[in-house]
Amino acid sequence: MPLLVTGSIGIDTVVSPYGRAEGVLGGSAVYFSLAASQYVPVRLVGVVGEDFPPEFRKVLEGRNIDLRGLEVRKGSKTFRWSGRFEGAMNQAETLELDLNVLAERGPKVPEVFADSKMVFLANTHPTLQRDLLKQLRSPELVVCDTMDLWITTERESLVETLRVVHGVIVNDGEARQLTGKMNLFDAGEAILALGPRFVMIKKGEHGGLLVSRDGVAALPGFPTTRVKDPTGAGDTFAGGILGYIASVGRTDFETLRQALVRGTVAASFVIEDFSVRRVEGLTRAELDRRVAEFVKMLRFG
Amino acid sequence: MPLLVTGSIGIDTVVSPYGRAEGVLGGSAVYFSLAASQYVPVRLVGVVGEDFPPEFRKVLEGRNIDLRGLEVRKGSKTFRWSGRFEGAMNQAETLELDLNVLAERGPKVPEVFADSKMVFLANTHPTLQRDLLKQLRSPELVVCDTMDLWITTERESLVETLRVVHGVIVNDGEARQLTGKMNLFDAGEAILALGPRFVMIKKGEHGGLLVSRDGVAALPGFPTTRVKDPTGAGDTFAGGILGYIASVGRTDFETLRQALVRGTVAASFVIEDFSVRRVEGLTRAELDRRVAEFVKMLRFG
Repeated sequence: MPLLVTGSIGIDTVVSPYGRAEGVLGGSAVYFSLAASQYVPVRLVGVVGEDFPPEFRKVLEGRNIDLRGLEVRKGSKTFRWSGRFEGAMNQAETLELDLNVLAERGPKVPEVFADSKMVFLANTHPTLQRDLLKQLRSPELVVCDTMDLWITTERESLVETLRVVHGVIVNDGEARQLTGKMNLFDAGEAILALGPRFVMIKKGEHGGLLVSRDGVAALPGFPTTRVKDPTGAGDTFAGGILGYIASVGRTDFETLRQALVRGTVAASFVIEDFSVRRVEGLTRAELDRRVAEFVKMLRFG
Repeated sequence: MPLLVTGSIGIDTVVSPYGRAEGVLGGSAVYFSLAASQYVPVRLVGVVGEDFPPEFRKVLEGRNIDLRGLEVRKGSKTFRWSGRFEGAMNQAETLELDLNVLAERGPKVPEVFADSKMVFLANTHPTLQRDLLKQLRSPELVVCDTMDLWITTERESLVETLRVVHGVIVNDGEARQLTGKMNLFDAGEAILALGPRFVMIKKGEHGGLLVSRDGVAALPGFPTTRVKDPTGAGDTFAGGILGYIASVGRTDFETLRQALVRGTVAASFVIEDFSVRRVEGLTRAELDRRVAEFVKMLRFG
């Protein structure tokens, strides 16, 4: 089943203790699409400026990603982000942010995508998330991300979005901030009380949690020493989860549990190199091998 | 096989968002012993003052803990610690610390314990850790903990202790501080290079890691919303690990992996109530049930 995603498409500059990458491909929808397209065809909805490099477009064209929803807006410039990771690299420090085209009107869902049943709304203004949703005829599974900024400044609109989605993927800090609950399982339950049927909480190097009406699950991060650039780890996590769910076509507890494994493993690849370098050519066989390795590590009886 | 432990025995006062407990039983050796004695007989070596309440002694006597190494020193006072947990409660803030008897000469290993083969040296001055070790005739498995203070002020002595132990159990901050490596698997490898055959890294709510010469493993914390007081979680984690290892009598990779599960589950109980309230009467059946539940949660194929 094809999976529609909308989110940012950007040009990043990233500094970490392992080096620097300047003017590279980034953006939430990009990382999500590369991960999810390992499992199902992805329909990308987003907008870039005229300066969007053709080689970046080629990266996306090289995977199972339908770009008919990618608008190249005349006279506009692509979103740019520059950030730095230090120490344990659990959080990026934003050095520069140019919203550019993202500060203009949102992208339009093309008619050929309007029948999409599964949707991921990557982080953006919660009102824009609902606007996009209204362009779909009969979505059946809608999952969203959000960020600290909207939790603080747009709480009411965010709560309205949470009422209409089926799942939420946020990080631990956002879950705590949104609910005021310090215990992450309490925070997850509090988010369920706002509407969603399941919540996946991303914890960077510490893995992820699933809180659903049918139970909870917790996973460590995949053990790795090869961490160069955590940019996009959260969106890749979401892409692995939603891609897997869309490929199964169900959201029962066992499918959600298995999806959490796929998300965690997907994220373990993207952090191994800057930008999308490690995942743009990643094979499904490599992915499946690491999933099997992870499942084996977690088997105790 | 009996397991010898030496460490602090204290009187604690703890404040958390869930309440306050004043003048309660605490100390690294106490938490360790209560957890380890679920699996094997424990030999406790420590020293308290004349003010040590008889009812605290009864808690220890009620379990499989041999108190012939517990010295009640005339004219001395018991170690006292007071601390506060806030927010996500991952770290205690020390409010008051009276070393009292712990600032005097260390405890002596009684002759009846000198044949101990398995030893846990809870956190204390690394020179005292080696002094205690010298009182044993032929220890076969020695595991130690340490703390930020000794890493900073007694690094040389600590490195000497690490050369003579077989295993180390430290928290994530200590592992990073000791090695200068931010990636915890890199940090674990760097500790192995100092001598030990395995390292277990405690991460509070985020679970734990095993780094050994034969491989690595990672576990999430046991999912729980019942966290009232994290005091003693790290020592309980160590007690579950060493108790399990001593009961199996081996330190092969599979045993270490399984021990990590036992440590993580042991810690999930102690945090449910203040001091030792939740674990002083914990049954082996309760423990085994939660181990089975955790193993099931981690099974993905």
